[in-house]
Parts: sequence; structure tokens; C-alpha cells
Amino acid sequence: MPFRHEIPVRYGEVDLQGVVFNAHYLAYCDDAMDRWLRSLDVRFEQLGWDLMLKRTELTWHGGAGLGDTLVLDLGLRRWGTTSFEVEFAGTVLDRLVFEAVTTYVGVRAGTTEPLAPPPAVRSLLGEPAGG
Amino acid sequence: MPFRHEIPVRYGEVDLQGVVFNAHYLAYCDDAMDRWLRSLDVRFEQLGWDLMLKRTELTWHGGAGLGDTLVLDLGLRRWGTTSFEVEFAGTVLDRLVFEAVTTYVGVRAGTTEPLAPPPAVRSLLGEPAGG
Amino acid sequence: MPFRHEIPVRYGEVDLQGVVFNAHYLAYCDDAMDRWLRSLDVRFEQLGWDLMLKRTELTWHGGAGLGDTLVLDLGLRRWGTTSFEVEFAGTVLDRLVFEAVTTYVGVRAGTTEPLAPPPAVRSLLGEPAGG
Amino acid sequence: MPFRHEIPVRYGEVDLQGVVFNAHYLAYCDDAMDRWLRSLDVRFEQLGWDLMLKRTELTWHGGAGLGDTLVLDLGLRRWGTTSFEVEFAGTVLDRLVFEAVTTYVGVRAGTTEPLAPPPAVRSLLGEPAGG
Repeated sequence: MPFRHEIPVRYGEVDLQGVVFNAHYLAYCDDAMDRWLRSLDVRFEQLGWDLMLKRTELTWHGGAGLGDTLVLDLGLRRWGTTSFEVEFAGTVLDRLVFEAVTTYVGVRAGTTEPLAPPPAVRSLLGEPAGG
Repeated sequence: MPFRHEIPVRYGEVDLQGVVFNAHYLAYCDDAMDRWLRSLDVRFEQLGWDLMLKRTELTWHGGAGLGDTLVLDLGLRRWGTTSFEVEFAGTVLDRLVFEAVTTYVGVRAGTTEPLAPPPAVRSLLGEPAGG
Repeated sequence: MPFRHEIPVRYGEVDLQGVVFNAHYLAYCDDAMDRWLRSLDVRFEQLGWDLMLKRTELTWHGGAGLGDTLVLDLGLRRWGTTSFEVEFAGTVLDRLVFEAVTTYVGVRAGTTEPLAPPPAVRSLLGEPAGG
Repeated sequence: MPFRHEIPVRYGEVDLQGVVFNAHYLAYCDDAMDRWLRSLDVRFEQLGWDLMLKRTELTWHGGAGLGDTLVLDLGLRRWGTTSFEVEFAGTVLDRLVFEAVTTYVGVRAGTTEPLAPPPAVRSLLGEPAGG
């Protein structure tokens, strides 16, 4: 997968069960995707484009806990016209903790009007790994 | 759907796009499910049983924003042996904001060992709406 | 104190020590203050005014935990020219959990330029309890 | 100050005013202090000791925003018998964003019974900068 982002778990993100509270995994994915897009030379909002979540599915195979650093690997999975799917795999020391697939919709910045990603974004995200 | 939980959106949960940040919707679902289970006469952990998320999928149809109260309706969708699926619908003034389906796995409290829900939990959650 | 706001603790806000993670108390205070201001007939931002935190101090006397509802009582403590202090007391079933004092600075909405609160806000918040 | 911790701001931590929502600064301080203590060779909980917040005061001089990395510098400020004060300074590219002073109370792990920090913790945190 073309982009990796590491997130050291914070104490306050761990719940009474001793693992990261479920909602934080979604925040981690958002942070990883945001950083991937911000690795562009320009801020994507300045291209008049922004993105919103349309759908996400997460599957847990275990948990990350206190002292763990969660490694997120992500890559493009499918291109639509204005939307695209990104897949995420989260590991701790090579142990698979969770997987996610998120469908984003490109929008004109500041609106909810669909807009295809600009070439710079399309080029950054690349093509699906399998194809 | 048999259980309803209302969540007034907090200012700090709204992001730069003017809508609730995506990860908070998962926290809202967790809160709703927790309150449904805590409507039992006993704390379910005292029955030696606990639950963990195995899988969740969320689909957004819009956003909730500042000043909105999100109404979550939830109900059982499918029973497995130790697992079960719950569906959620989130609305603001009858406008559908998001839907979610979450698969929970019952576990022996304090462990990750699968354990079927105790009768009290099973009775509370009831049967799938469709039959 | 002239305003009360109740916050049922969410499962995901409780940390490994079994009490609400410290940062959430600050979010609770923010939520309470926001609701007090939003009890106005108009949205305060539409009056061209907004507020920012300048300083806050929190003192804990205990903790709120799973299943607790935290009751926040708040009231004005001191008026400055563009700033003002608000005090908070958080209780669970009349047990004092924490106290806080926050200094807010009024600003012209959308800027950081100091601006005295509009009369509607000043009237809502009232005068210091002691004086 | 003897310990530094860098926190890249996450998109979801920025609120409608375009700056990090106030409660997150407290979570950042908690994270920084936790990492300082976890730089020990042993987990401090294994020494039978844990810490809780007694009091904190934060003063903001500006805000951190999207794309910023907040640099936290922290150091011991005062030793009590079972309590101690730590001071924090948060900067973005050498611009002071906030300062904080937090009073922690040492407790016997798993309880709220006061307990002086073990020698390893005391040695790690060192002496107040001024004297």
C-alpha cells in the first residue's frame, strides 16, 4: 500500500476494556487519509476541492492498547466519477488489528456539490493496487 | 425500532466543514447501544458478560450540525450464536442523517472468549423487526 | 447558580482508571456554556459576537464514572470589559466532582479582535452571584 | 525543560473557529506527561504507583490549527509529599500557543490512596528548573 501513517495510542483513547475505544479507529483513518492528501505540494482546499465520507466499514481482528503504536497502511481501491474508495489496514508490530474501507465523495470546497478530484489528487492517490 | 436515544450535538464535535466529525457518529452509536443495555435491571457485566465490536458499517446521507439533536433509533437485526447485529438510524427533525449496522460479539466479561448473551440481554434486545 | 446542564457520561469517555478522562471535563464545561448562550432567542454569532477561552482552571475532588450523570451548575463570576469569568461546579448525586473557573474573551465573530458582549448576552449571563 | 513531545494536530480536533478545540489541549498535556513517564525502563503501574490529576490551569495565547505540529515542552515545577506540579509550554514554530500547570497526586495503583512517587519516577522527573 502506497501510504503509511503511524499513530501512537494516547492514554485517554483507551477504554475500560483496555483497548482503544472503537470510535477512535475512525478518527485514526481520517487522520491518515488527511495526511496522505496533505503530502501534496498544495493544500487541496486551494484547488477548490474537498472530500466527505459517504460510507465506511470497519472490521476488528483485535485491539490496540496502552503503549502501542498503530501503523496504518492505506491505498486506493476503486475510482468512481466523483467518488473513490480507500482501504486501510491497521497493525501493531505486524499483528493485524483492523481493516477498513471508506468511500469518499469529492465535493466543491465549501459545498456538498459533487466534484471529481483534481488531477493532482488523482495522481497522488494513484491506481488500485490490483489493477 | 424498539430503542431511541437522543444526543444533542456538542460544539466541539463539529468540524471545519460545519458538520459532526465522522468518528463521533460511531461514539454516538456506542452510547445508544450502551444505554439500551443499561436499561436492564442489572449491570450486564455483573452477569459475567460483555460485548465487543466485530464489524460496523456506516452510511451518511447528510450531516448533523451545531444546535442539532440527533435522534438514534436502534433495533436488533440478526442473532448469531455469540454474535448479533444491531441497526441504527440517525435523524435530525425526521431528516435521515446516517444509518449503521454493527456486529457485536458477546464475550466472557474481562476476556475475549466468545460467550452467548445471557437470557436477560437476549430478552431485552428481542427479535429482528422483520420476523 | 443560574444555569444547569446535565451530561450523562458516555462509556467511551471513561478511561482505564474507571473515571472520566480529564480532558472531557473541559469539553463538558464548554458544552454547558454553549447551551447557556444558545438559550438566547438569537444565535449569538448572528449578533456579530463570539467568544474564546483565555484561561481555565479545574480542580478535581473526585471522579465521575460509568452510569453517572454529571450535573453542571454555572454562573457568572466577574465582568471585565471584553472578558468575563464563569464558574462551574460539577456534581454527581450531590457529590462534588470538580470545580472550574474559565475566563472567556469576547471577540468580533470570525476574528480574534476583542469585542464586548452584546447587551443580550450580558443580560443573559447576569451579575456575579456575590455582588 | 527536560522533556519534549510533538503532536501533529488532527483534522477532527479543529473546531468551527479554525483552531484546536479547547479540551484537546488538556488531552495533549496528558499524552505528553504519559510519554515522559513511559520513557522509564519499567511501566510505572508495575511499581504499584499511579497518578491522578488534582488541578490544572491552562492559559491560551493563541491557537494551533490545521497542519500545525504542536511542540510541548514540560518540566517539573514543584515537589510535594505525594503530589507534584508540572508545567507545560505549547508552541507552533516557536510561537507560544498555550501554557499550563498541572498538579498531580501520586496514588497506590488501582486506588485513590495517596502514595509518594517511587524513586525511579522521582529521579526521572528531576528537580524544579529554578532551583
